[in-house]
Amino acid sequence: MAEPRSSSSPARASVGEVCAWIDAQVSSLRAEDVPLVEAGGRVAAADVAAGFDLPPFDRAAVDGIAVRAEDTVGASPYSPCLLRWVAASDELPVGGAAQLNAGAPLPRGADAVIALHLVGREAGGAAAITEPVAAASGTEPRGCQVATGNTLVAAGRLLRAAELGLLASAGWERVAVVRRPLVRCVIAGAILETARSPSRAQVYEASGPALRAVVERDGGRIVEATAVARDRASLRDALLRPGADIILVVGGTGPGADDEAAAALAEAGELVIDGVALRHADSAGLGRAGGVPVVLLPGSPAACLLAYEVLAGRAIRRLGGRNGALPFPTRTMTMARKVVSEISMAEVRPVRYATAGSVEPVPPITEIGLMALAGADGFLLIPEGSEGYRQGAAVSVYLYEGYDCAQP
Amino acid sequence: MAEPRSSSSPARASVGEVCAWIDAQVSSLRAEDVPLVEAGGRVAAADVAAGFDLPPFDRAAVDGIAVRAEDTVGASPYSPCLLRWVAASDELPVGGAAQLNAGAPLPRGADAVIALHLVGREAGGAAAITEPVAAASGTEPRGCQVATGNTLVAAGRLLRAAELGLLASAGWERVAVVRRPLVRCVIAGAILETARSPSRAQVYEASGPALRAVVERDGGRIVEATAVARDRASLRDALLRPGADIILVVGGTGPGADDEAAAALAEAGELVIDGVALRHADSAGLGRAGGVPVVLLPGSPAACLLAYEVLAGRAIRRLGGRNGALPFPTRTMTMARKVVSEISMAEVRPVRYATAGSVEPVPPITEIGLMALAGADGFLLIPEGSEGYRQGAAVSVYLYEGYDCAQP
Repeated sequence: MAEPRSSSSPARASVGEVCAWIDAQVSSLRAEDVPLVEAGGRVAAADVAAGFDLPPFDRAAVDGIAVRAEDTVGASPYSPCLLRWVAASDELPVGGAAQLNAGAPLPRGADAVIALHLVGREAGGAAAITEPVAAASGTEPRGCQVATGNTLVAAGRLLRAAELGLLASAGWERVAVVRRPLVRCVIAGAILETARSPSRAQVYEASGPALRAVVERDGGRIVEATAVARDRASLRDALLRPGADIILVVGGTGPGADDEAAAALAEAGELVIDGVALRHADSAGLGRAGGVPVVLLPGSPAACLLAYEVLAGRAIRRLGGRNGALPFPTRTMTMARKVVSEISMAEVRPVRYATAGSVEPVPPITEIGLMALAGADGFLLIPEGSEGYRQGAAVSVYLYEGYDCAQP
Repeated sequence: MAEPRSSSSPARASVGEVCAWIDAQVSSLRAEDVPLVEAGGRVAAADVAAGFDLPPFDRAAVDGIAVRAEDTVGASPYSPCLLRWVAASDELPVGGAAQLNAGAPLPRGADAVIALHLVGREAGGAAAITEPVAAASGTEPRGCQVATGNTLVAAGRLLRAAELGLLASAGWERVAVVRRPLVRCVIAGAILETARSPSRAQVYEASGPALRAVVERDGGRIVEATAVARDRASLRDALLRPGADIILVVGGTGPGADDEAAAALAEAGELVIDGVALRHADSAGLGRAGGVPVVLLPGSPAACLLAYEVLAGRAIRRLGGRNGALPFPTRTMTMARKVVSEISMAEVRPVRYATAGSVEPVPPITEIGLMALAGADGFLLIPEGSEGYRQGAAVSVYLYEGYDCAQP
């Protein structure tokens, strides 16, 4: 049996120190070109400029009739101006009116469009206009949305529906985006170890499926998730295999006899942070191996997920060109009950909606594990200098969904 | 040339009336079983109960030594209790101490776990305990997270990382989720129609890529996106083809001569709503054809996207078992400048961050089209009874990203 480790571990890094290290070490991956239809949720790698004016010609802004504005001078309900209906063509004759759909190019000579419901139809086919129109009214002049050379989408912008539609309308079929971070998960043999007796067959690996969901949410892709024997040499070898942009090690971080993740990272490369002042996840660590960042996550599924959210996720989001900050909307709410937190450690504290505008803590992770996170509507991130919040205090709540939880 | 339609269209439905119709007509699709690894972002179709206790046995909550609590009675720094180190096995002898990793089952007889850093090691291999421990401390009793038969994940819950981890740890490899809504987009011939002259080759279809992004965000899947000739018979036939859970028609909704979407829907099934009091998207319509809901969206890309967000997206989210409400977090902010809105129409008004805590309108959609949406940080949904907001007014802003836009 190995000796238990000494209790005099080096001082833990604060969450702020870890974030600063990540921000200094990790930046966007290089760009790749992808088809526009696959670019949703990706991040623009460079400014994209308009190659031509948008719209590319003067066009109708409404369904209506194209006219020469000067032809309508003096029109009134008592003395309507009568224009001759003509088929839409390349040129509008003087005194003519041509029906156009919104978006259709103006014929030469036409400089205004009158909406259909403002146009009367006289016997004999004339269009009756009862009000003079100003030149350019009812039209979209060439280039009014974007002029040639101007920026359509700036580097770093997350590509959502509007950005994709805009790029499509500007003729782009592909776009340069930041490459998706490739993530390797190394699971430090937790299943193997606990499979000694029949009842233990009921211990299932939970961190893998959970990590897959958060990695994909953050724009990454898990290229490999392997269980590795818990010894130092096996872990070290797994850390040195190429092919990933970041490696997450799950388990083997504690003070136990066979907790070798930190030692393996020190051998494979550099163990920079050994222990973080984050409750439940204080055994987490960070460093580099084989030229890529490595995050050591605790093996307990709830702790693993917390450490991912606060530490590893930041690195993955930054690799993918996103903002590193926690990817949850925040809302200021009040505490329906007090919440106590250990000073000297930051703490993620799951909460659920109580009465309107207030939240209450759910039973702690130490008691109900992942049920605390799965049953929560969001969480508080209590800073390490805080002892918690009294009842009625205003707190900033990170919400899992801004809309998807039943709010009282 | 066809006659322009009469201006005396029937009264437009309010956004609230449309939402009520959608809620009455559209509910969750049936369930399907999917592997847990593919279930991220899906919605649980039924309550999932624990088939066994979690954890399935009494286990160590920390890396430490398993003891019989009664063996530690009377321990103090001056008179430590000395226990005999033994290898972990199925039973802990009286007076013994067995080292365990967090998560490992307690040997029979052991009822407490003492964290390693609280344990001294005496010459001769004894474990020195300097403080008595209470029974159950440092342990997780069988079933403390979830007892057999209790709900792990409730029907309707969006499956995120914590839910997936919980289901995995409870032994589930598959889960019943609401089927993804299959969406057909029928593009009413806008490209064909405007491709008459060389310069018009520069008119690209923008709504397709934009709709794909929002449909996927809302949990749906576009199974077909086809351009269809703009005549009534072609549109009617497209509406009657089976294979989709909902059909979105893009374009052909206006008062123009060849705007046949509403008439085609009336022929194919039922046109229930013909016109919506939503600015830029007032030509939208809704109904049913071939047993599925149909939403008629205006053809202009910005208007199409607005109408999707406020009208069609609600139906798709509900089909997929999600909350129908707009899928954006909201935050109360103040107007840095006034915004004016036409009374009698609801209006989506894109805004961007101004100074801290405030927003200002971007140039309107009528002037810059999709650039208004692509350049915005969020939007206001101004109700139909409002004329807008004065400078300094508190408004509820729907944010595209709670975190991803540079906030001043």
